[in-house]
Amino acid sequence: MFYPKSLNKLIESFKKLPGIGDKTAERMALSVLQFDKESTDVFAQAISDVNEKIKKCPLCHHLTEEDKCYICKDKNRNDDILCIVEEPKDVISLEKIGAFKGRYHVLGGLISPSDGINPEDINISSLVDRIKNKKIKEVIIALKSSIEGETTALYISKVLSGLDLKISKIAYGLPIGVDIEYIDALTLERALEDRIDIS
Amino acid sequence: MFYPKSLNKLIESFKKLPGIGDKTAERMALSVLQFDKESTDVFAQAISDVNEKIKKCPLCHHLTEEDKCYICKDKNRNDDILCIVEEPKDVISLEKIGAFKGRYHVLGGLISPSDGINPEDINISSLVDRIKNKKIKEVIIALKSSIEGETTALYISKVLSGLDLKISKIAYGLPIGVDIEYIDALTLERALEDRIDIS
Repeated sequence: MFYPKSLNKLIESFKKLPGIGDKTAERMALSVLQFDKESTDVFAQAISDVNEKIKKCPLCHHLTEEDKCYICKDKNRNDDILCIVEEPKDVISLEKIGAFKGRYHVLGGLISPSDGINPEDINISSLVDRIKNKKIKEVIIALKSSIEGETTALYISKVLSGLDLKISKIAYGLPIGVDIEYIDALTLERALEDRIDIS
Repeated sequence: MFYPKSLNKLIESFKKLPGIGDKTAERMALSVLQFDKESTDVFAQAISDVNEKIKKCPLCHHLTEEDKCYICKDKNRNDDILCIVEEPKDVISLEKIGAFKGRYHVLGGLISPSDGINPEDINISSLVDRIKNKKIKEVIIALKSSIEGETTALYISKVLSGLDLKISKIAYGLPIGVDIEYIDALTLERALEDRIDIS
């Protein structure tokens, strides 16, 4: 109520973003005041566009503005291998390192009965269809290591069992370059459990 | 380049906000995807409005969408006393505590010769005019304690000297409830210097 109306509205909008509190929202809104007209036009337009234009790729459920996402469209990628991730941003993280050249499948969530999220609520049936109908030979499950992540990975590996398919899970353990003393107990335990024979 | 175009534009826009890096901008943009249409409409509109509608109050230089700001318009405030602040957000901070019922004057910056900001670059001449033409009896300088803040306070007090006016500066010292051991040396030194006789 202390700021002019439009500024208050902008502050309220910023506060809807994750991790943004009163003070930060205020600082951000005041900084928008300093933007030139072109920047605010682009900003406002991008917000509308994101809501109107972006949809899910019907094949892999990654984000796209077109009929298929650019990864599904890319003819130079390996069709044999499929990487299963939770969210579109996981695709981006993997694409940024550039080490994976296969296809993706975005689940859009993890199985979590306590939150009412069951296998049919995430993109698992389309995953099974995809694997059955395509010449996919290997599946990498790249989900986070949490109860939900492990449950989902287990469920997927069961659903896919019986198919002529190699199924793997990404490795969990110590982040590179981090001192052991700073690692939490669960990660350290996991790193010990999943130790790799190098003898 | 990994995200759809409109999402990339939104990420770039968020990155122009203070303190927002790549990861946070990405997270924010993805969260806008989850907004309903109404929220994005309001958000986009607020950004445009802020840029188009908000201007400076011609009297006190606070932000407003109207011909004068709501504080200058308020007839129930004390015309005798004027509080000088650096930025509009300082007005808001003071208004939030509700302890000051006079008028404000927003300088819009602090004197800083090394940054090329001289007295004529901030709203000092309009301040002097205001004081000379009105029945203001007391001026409170509420600027931050920095070289620029102190320089500006000193300059203002010199410019206003000779007028029949009480001039004061807000107190600098220990924040309330903070242990002395956590206070930086400059603040502690200042708190000692500005000690108040209670004998």
